[in-house]
Amino acid sequence: MKKSKPLFITMEGGEGSGKTTHSHLLKEYLEDKGFSVILTREPGGTVLAESIRKIILEPGSNLVPLSELLLYEAARAQHIQEIILPALRNGKTVICDRFTDATVAYQGYGRKLNLSLIQKLNAAASFGLKPFITIYMDINPSLGVGKAKDLDKESYGKSGDRIERESLSFHKAVRKGYLALAKKYPKRIKIIKTNPDVNKTRDLIRKEIDRRIISNYSLLTTHCR
Amino acid sequence: MKKSKPLFITMEGGEGSGKTTHSHLLKEYLEDKGFSVILTREPGGTVLAESIRKIILEPGSNLVPLSELLLYEAARAQHIQEIILPALRNGKTVICDRFTDATVAYQGYGRKLNLSLIQKLNAAASFGLKPFITIYMDINPSLGVGKAKDLDKESYGKSGDRIERESLSFHKAVRKGYLALAKKYPKRIKIIKTNPDVNKTRDLIRKEIDRRIISNYSLLTTHCR
Repeated sequence: MKKSKPLFITMEGGEGSGKTTHSHLLKEYLEDKGFSVILTREPGGTVLAESIRKIILEPGSNLVPLSELLLYEAARAQHIQEIILPALRNGKTVICDRFTDATVAYQGYGRKLNLSLIQKLNAAASFGLKPFITIYMDINPSLGVGKAKDLDKESYGKSGDRIERESLSFHKAVRKGYLALAKKYPKRIKIIKTNPDVNKTRDLIRKEIDRRIISNYSLLTTHCR
Repeated sequence: MKKSKPLFITMEGGEGSGKTTHSHLLKEYLEDKGFSVILTREPGGTVLAESIRKIILEPGSNLVPLSELLLYEAARAQHIQEIILPALRNGKTVICDRFTDATVAYQGYGRKLNLSLIQKLNAAASFGLKPFITIYMDINPSLGVGKAKDLDKESYGKSGDRIERESLSFHKAVRKGYLALAKKYPKRIKIIKTNPDVNKTRDLIRKEIDRRIISNYSLLTTHCR
């Protein structure tokens, strides 16, 4: 098996953007290239963080926005220490379904919480870990939220978690947040427009990942000379 | 019934210091004086915050210190918005069993987390609310922790939650934290040494509360002149 430097990749996007499907497809792709990959998600990824996820996503609860933010960050700190950092240390590439950008988009732009507080909490809870590359899967919220709800109904017989049930204007604000982040960090965040053809979207993601791995590799080689 | 300005009183102290007993006794005392009082506790006080409490106190879990801190703050934000602020707005006096000082003592001094981060989180999660008076019940940790564990065994047939099961040096660091806070805020925080005679401790607390209510009343009267 080919040896490779472990990467930390995050997948971001609104509801119904296809993040989960494409996280799985990307995992297979990187494994074929010789990477040893784990796929994990936020909030969650550990027994403790999944208990926190349950509190956050429970439909009908009256969780206040600041409490929601702090729960996401608590789940993140646990997930990073228990799963992500040990995996990277053991040479595994980690694909994480949602990370700090989601907090800026959902709690900052969606819930209108203070962005500077969010930045401080993101930095603390991620223990300085930054993604090597972030794939932001962009979809029109009117389309995406409906898709996500249908999928939930099909799989679990219920219509959307607490976040999916938010208003369309909330989901539009979230998208605005993601696009602002992508503009601010153009080197790290790559926008992929979700195409109805899964194979087309998959190929676009592969192209971005390849490009980034190659440019990083040349950078490493240049530095070594 | 006599009308009175609602007060926000916090009760602090290490394990086995008698906080809970004396919170109940103080509630009765203030009600006799004509205050309408609610008694609540941290972490907890609401259905959501009690779910968070369960995660925090579960014995044997591997909760990381930063995640523990963020969960306490999440429970606090929920508790403040859902219970404490509405109660104060409705003219009720609130006695809260543990509040922001506990976070400085337990997570700052006990867990050695960054004090400046704790201060920022305390300020955010308490929405600027500060106690009118804080009773810090001081007990030697070697004595107090044993008492708390015995009480738990008697009541629930188990020997201490995740915090009670911490080492003696942890509980000594917590006490050091409380004493440092009492030194820093001598006007707000009153140290009451827990006496084996409950009535003696109760009377010391009543004296401090009376003194503080009277001095506050004269302050108000002076300002009105």
